[in-house]
Amino acid sequence: MLSAISRGRDVAAPARAVPEETAVALVYDGSTEAVMMATPADLEDFAVGFSLVEGIVGSPGEITDLSIVAGPAGIELRLWLAAPRADAYGRRRRRLAGPTGCGLCGIESLDEAMRPARRIASDLSVASTDVAAAISALEAAQHLAHATHATHAAGFFVPGRGLVALREDVGRHNALDKLAGALARRGIAGAGGVVVITSRVSVEMVQKTAAIGAPVLIAVSAPTALAVRTAQAAGLTLVVMARGTGFEVYAGVERLRDLAPHG
Amino acid sequence: MLSAISRGRDVAAPARAVPEETAVALVYDGSTEAVMMATPADLEDFAVGFSLVEGIVGSPGEITDLSIVAGPAGIELRLWLAAPRADAYGRRRRRLAGPTGCGLCGIESLDEAMRPARRIASDLSVASTDVAAAISALEAAQHLAHATHATHAAGFFVPGRGLVALREDVGRHNALDKLAGALARRGIAGAGGVVVITSRVSVEMVQKTAAIGAPVLIAVSAPTALAVRTAQAAGLTLVVMARGTGFEVYAGVERLRDLAPHG
Repeated sequence: MLSAISRGRDVAAPARAVPEETAVALVYDGSTEAVMMATPADLEDFAVGFSLVEGIVGSPGEITDLSIVAGPAGIELRLWLAAPRADAYGRRRRRLAGPTGCGLCGIESLDEAMRPARRIASDLSVASTDVAAAISALEAAQHLAHATHATHAAGFFVPGRGLVALREDVGRHNALDKLAGALARRGIAGAGGVVVITSRVSVEMVQKTAAIGAPVLIAVSAPTALAVRTAQAAGLTLVVMARGTGFEVYAGVERLRDLAPHG
Repeated sequence: MLSAISRGRDVAAPARAVPEETAVALVYDGSTEAVMMATPADLEDFAVGFSLVEGIVGSPGEITDLSIVAGPAGIELRLWLAAPRADAYGRRRRRLAGPTGCGLCGIESLDEAMRPARRIASDLSVASTDVAAAISALEAAQHLAHATHATHAAGFFVPGRGLVALREDVGRHNALDKLAGALARRGIAGAGGVVVITSRVSVEMVQKTAAIGAPVLIAVSAPTALAVRTAQAAGLTLVVMARGTGFEVYAGVERLRDLAPHG
């Protein structure tokens, strides 16, 4: 149990909980792809979502086995890939490792990091009231954040149905990866709804939303310039600073029925 | 120029600026160590700070050359290391790449990620009024955040002198790396002051503060459980939820003069 000494706080207020954070390694066919500090919950979703969003697999079925192995330093997510994917993954790894086994040069690494986002294909449109409803539903449902004030959330909101999935994590990228996995494992198509997040919008959040296939990204906080340009190039509607009933639209305003210019 | 369509906002309010975000590759002796999305400012500080905090060098003088090369996909920070460091770096890279050039197994990767934080050696103590003063000084000075609502800041506060350095970035980790570099390049010892950050406290923020050698970390938002345990193990004083004159202390309360139990 962690304890704190407070100063200047209402002592009658309930104590905040402190969220767990664990090193999580994503290990494909025996090789580590990445290590992330993450909330140790919904790890199957995390494994599947990371694999999809990073383009390591095209569908959950291409993961033939997944085991979650906890050790003293953290948790391994051990994934095994179906044969064609395993071959492609092995080739990519060898290319990334380079002929001398010592990493890419800077230009290759930057090109790899800046792969263009997937182009959105969806005719979904939303109303301004959907934006407020999505934010309101997300904020009501993020139980871990209510307890800790230290986690982010990513949700999937379908106009007319409400919030159909929500994942939380100490990292905003992880929360969105977990959401991607949760949707894919339940067979929910990204094209039919809206991704809504509690955080700022950096370019990775746009790339991940595009990989999910969702045509609209709504965020509580502000975007970076690269996130805006990437959303525009991908045909993604980017709604930011969504608080109460106010918001700002930086890309793809045509999907907002009551704001789009009449044709 | 990026433009937005607003709904439900005061139209007389000045437009927010949108911060730049660029892929930045850290390239040592021709091999890429990492690619980060970062605010393209204070890049010398970022290069030096990342190198120090990650333990790639022990002092700025072990970097023999640094060039900043902008290309279409991002910016390369090309660093060249003095001979003993270059040899050590090459050995570490070969170990990380593994005998088959295809990455570590999960257990090795987790061990690498969870290296213990450096133990703090400093007899600095602070008063509760210093905590409020540090937060207040940081918030007043973060000009990029005022303009964009999308960046984090890390500052170095010396009791009795005030805020002596501040760096901002779209990423909270980058802001702290830049601060580490700014301090080292100006010859300011971390042991004499307090690191103050606008963000939540994940374990990496504790590890970086310990690498700087600062005995106190003050944060506007909440910590994770691993961050608290790591601070306790490193002997770092961890002050969180510092807003107005209130705050909570999760580790190292003995450095707070007016809160520590009398001996």
